Amino acid sequence: MGLFLAKVNSMKSFRKHLVFEVPKRRDYINITHEVENALKESGIQEGMILVSAMHITAAIYVNDAESGLIEDIDEWLETLAPFGKDYKHHRTGEDNGDAHLKNLLIHNQTMLAVTEGKIDFGPWQQIYYAEFDGRRRKRALIKIIGE
Amino acid sequence: MGLFLAKVNSMKSFRKHLVFEVPKRRDYINITHEVENALKESGIQEGMILVSAMHITAAIYVNDAESGLIEDIDEWLETLAPFGKDYKHHRTGEDNGDAHLKNLLIHNQTMLAVTEGKIDFGPWQQIYYAEFDGRRRKRALIKIIGE
Amino acid sequence: MGLFLAKVNSMKSFRKHLVFEVPKRRDYINITHEVENALKESGIQEGMILVSAMHITAAIYVNDAESGLIEDIDEWLETLAPFGKDYKHHRTGEDNGDAHLKNLLIHNQTMLAVTEGKIDFGPWQQIYYAEFDGRRRKRALIKIIGE
Repeated sequence: MGLFLAKVNSMKSFRKHLVFEVPKRRDYINITHEVENALKESGIQEGMILVSAMHITAAIYVNDAESGLIEDIDEWLETLAPFGKDYKHHRTGEDNGDAHLKNLLIHNQTMLAVTEGKIDFGPWQQIYYAEFDGRRRKRALIKIIGE
Repeated sequence: MGLFLAKVNSMKSFRKHLVFEVPKRRDYINITHEVENALKESGIQEGMILVSAMHITAAIYVNDAESGLIEDIDEWLETLAPFGKDYKHHRTGEDNGDAHLKNLLIHNQTMLAVTEGKIDFGPWQQIYYAEFDGRRRKRALIKIIGE
Repeated sequence: MGLFLAKVNSMKSFRKHLVFEVPKRRDYINITHEVENALKESGIQEGMILVSAMHITAAIYVNDAESGLIEDIDEWLETLAPFGKDYKHHRTGEDNGDAHLKNLLIHNQTMLAVTEGKIDFGPWQQIYYAEFDGRRRKRALIKIIGE
């Protein structure tokens, strides 16, 4: 009777939450490091990462870490989905109709590839959490699957 | 000769289609239950779900199940990509150029994380099928991978 | 001592880059064939594909291969995020602020399902690389996981 060793790379999964308490109504927070750290913690070498805002008034996007651009994004979102308009959603007592539309525009999530234990970024790609209705505790989900 | 038992959690995959026949041109349909049922049917405990409109004139998004907000979304999309404009796409005989642009704006798909057999939702997150060119049979795809 | 054969479908992963050198500032390139070829090369039968622009001034979208619609998309993007405006990002010496906003609007990526070795497309769905700041070498990432 010999020893039998089966090398089985079954699927692994890993989950982590990031917590935000943004003091302003709107802000843009670079979370690239936090996602890289979650990947290291997971030990996953090949797979995919989902980074998703767990709220309908926040978003996740991938773009440049350049302060002028971040101002441009904020002004542009205000033009396309302005704060303070008479949204029908406000009949519920809320004042954040714009934040829901900004979430739809920028999208609440991004997928990232993992190759040889690293996030497969192109030049300048950074992950941002975009808060559109801050001053309360909010979360983003990091889910990694792979092996 | 002994019995050899290898416990191998290999990757599982599951696919299902949802069918829509929306009587109006535009409508917003909460499909959260249908996606949750597909997940149960799959038996997958850890992984990811892709929910994707199989059409280029419909979309999938995650946001609030609040009727005022749904009216806001519809009006807002009409402002940014109005129906009835003289789109070049209409030279083909179609009249749904706006629906293609609305699809691009809202995005045709969403990814969801699966943890311990459940969809990893934040508060208020609901999955919607957004129809921008109804009155015909259309489908959305649910694909789940995991274990 | 008998022969032991374990049929283990462990997770597979595959990565490929597409390279673009678009001579114009903006263009829309159908990459459906290239993604289908990558899938064949991978040998993966069940899983998911991420197609992602590796740049923050380009995008990936799924829509119709119809030339009138592509003109509509280009004009519409120019209306919502015009080239040549006095963006704050231009204080860095760049002139491509519009391209960053167009990337956010159209989204830099798409996910596709793989079933029985094929991409799970609906009718008319085609994958496009949208260049918003061409005349330089750029890349898109194809990452496939599955089995």
